[in-house]
Amino acid sequence: MNIHAKRISDIRKILSEKKLDALLLTQIKDVFYVSGFHQDRTAVLITKNKSFAFIPKMFLEHFKEIASFIDTVVYDNYHESVLSKIKELGLKKTVFDPSFESYTEGKFWVSGGLQECSGILTSLRMIKEGEELENVKTACKIAAKTFKLIKPKIKEGIREVDVAAEMEYLMRKQGAMEKSFDLIIAFGENSALPHHETSTRKLKKNEPVLIDFGCVFGRYCSDMTRTFFYGQPSAEFLKVYSIVDKAQKAGVAGVLAGRKGKDIDAICRDYISASGYGQYFIHGTGHGVGLQIHEEPYINTKGETELREGMIITVEPGIYLYGKFGVRIEDTILVGRKKSVPLTR
Amino acid sequence: MNIHAKRISDIRKILSEKKLDALLLTQIKDVFYVSGFHQDRTAVLITKNKSFAFIPKMFLEHFKEIASFIDTVVYDNYHESVLSKIKELGLKKTVFDPSFESYTEGKFWVSGGLQECSGILTSLRMIKEGEELENVKTACKIAAKTFKLIKPKIKEGIREVDVAAEMEYLMRKQGAMEKSFDLIIAFGENSALPHHETSTRKLKKNEPVLIDFGCVFGRYCSDMTRTFFYGQPSAEFLKVYSIVDKAQKAGVAGVLAGRKGKDIDAICRDYISASGYGQYFIHGTGHGVGLQIHEEPYINTKGETELREGMIITVEPGIYLYGKFGVRIEDTILVGRKKSVPLTR
Repeated sequence: MNIHAKRISDIRKILSEKKLDALLLTQIKDVFYVSGFHQDRTAVLITKNKSFAFIPKMFLEHFKEIASFIDTVVYDNYHESVLSKIKELGLKKTVFDPSFESYTEGKFWVSGGLQECSGILTSLRMIKEGEELENVKTACKIAAKTFKLIKPKIKEGIREVDVAAEMEYLMRKQGAMEKSFDLIIAFGENSALPHHETSTRKLKKNEPVLIDFGCVFGRYCSDMTRTFFYGQPSAEFLKVYSIVDKAQKAGVAGVLAGRKGKDIDAICRDYISASGYGQYFIHGTGHGVGLQIHEEPYINTKGETELREGMIITVEPGIYLYGKFGVRIEDTILVGRKKSVPLTR
Repeated sequence: MNIHAKRISDIRKILSEKKLDALLLTQIKDVFYVSGFHQDRTAVLITKNKSFAFIPKMFLEHFKEIASFIDTVVYDNYHESVLSKIKELGLKKTVFDPSFESYTEGKFWVSGGLQECSGILTSLRMIKEGEELENVKTACKIAAKTFKLIKPKIKEGIREVDVAAEMEYLMRKQGAMEKSFDLIIAFGENSALPHHETSTRKLKKNEPVLIDFGCVFGRYCSDMTRTFFYGQPSAEFLKVYSIVDKAQKAGVAGVLAGRKGKDIDAICRDYISASGYGQYFIHGTGHGVGLQIHEEPYINTKGETELREGMIITVEPGIYLYGKFGVRIEDTILVGRKKSVPLTR
């Protein structure tokens, strides 16, 4: 059984458990997950014994090449085409994920007899195995190597955007499809903005450098952050760096199947708070990584999802002293039962 | 009046005309349009005389730097924070755009007393002026120059992904923030797939090359496509190329304020049909370009939006002979009253 057939079979088990007739997938990453086909404006309907893709005519031949195991319905009017197929098949309980439909579309599906059901794909997609796991690992290796290659080139006068351009190019040259998100390159006081937007600011002597980046390989993402000091670090920088470093290492060591996201968050947060910087750790500790750069499970104070073997998450505590500097350290981690593995080290 | 104040004032005029009390903006591009702040998880509420941004604590200082003219509400729970502010202000008729909210969120807003109203921002964002117009022009110039720089480097043995990597790097080096979408680099038979995904396929002698690309400058996009033959073109390629070229030129010449999207589509489609290739032009003729690579107005058989001065659209007819080759030619065009201006030439 190939991977897509297995995933469709897993979905059917869930449909059967939940006593549902069919699931409509409309999000591009969900459609890719079950078909290998990655284009917008394509939806897949999975019933107990059949699957149908609704696609524009322009994608038909391409879809057939990639996913011949799914029947195709070429649509002129997408919504009507889906409803008409559901009616034709006599499906009584077809569900869609209300988080991935616009309000306009959700209302249309509901008026057409569909029902809401959240999280079916989320629960499957959280666990990575086989080729997707290898893809994440490769994406992580490319990122880690890129940092090693770029670090010696970061010198006085270089602009944040130059570093971003060089890193994107280096990742591409190693086989990455693209960056996994807009790289955050932050010099000096910009490092105190957790989501700083890479600018034309130039690096000066004796400044911190924060680099948050990742790439996509085989459609799977990596995510890592490194902070270092260019020149002679101040005592305050060294102190803050040491706290974040220890908090991050403790968090990474704490990542084990069976624990919840909020447990990992607490490990990092408690350490930083005990060190007197609690109020400057102003975001969650991490997130799942996969086809999307941010996905379930979320590692924050509200993270109730229990970690399981095969999940991939980030651990990225930080301390941000607005107007001065910030430090964040982040790795992408493969969750294990007895031992978890940082993939970006 | 600065540009953001003007846009907020334009929104208030529409609110007044429609007898509404307030508009909730949640889409990142809409929030940027009125504030200059570009981050997820930030919403803006515009009332008749005030504006409020709802933001996570981690963005607060940054937001204040960029958009001090908007009041800030730091939220712990986003949805409750918005509803509580609406209640506090006693707003009776607050609207949201149902296309930009998930079904889950839309239901929440409706249960909290908000109402649906589509297209307020769409109607404003369609017309480009001042700095945003300059940004599109620069994004187009960078793209056009990049094509000139890359074309001589496209030779036997180069891979599609290599061309993409080099082009992205060239655009970055000219000041682009990033590519405006995943570049489509298609050699040989891949050119017959309108949304081909750039692959590791190598270029051979005597093959067509299709390149669909663009970049982002100052957050505004450009979009263009060129098709050429590497080596000795076949008679069939020359014939098809000539038809698409003439159809595209006729379409571009037809772009004038007062016409509708479907009129432009008909010019291109009729020409290609009359040449005997109608069934191989399997997509719409174009789309608006701005903060998003695809936005209103859409130029297709159903395009009812009347073109107005200051709109920016693409004209991109194509002929796709599956298994053989495809030709698409595309420019980004500034709509004028008496004369429209191709920006990517």
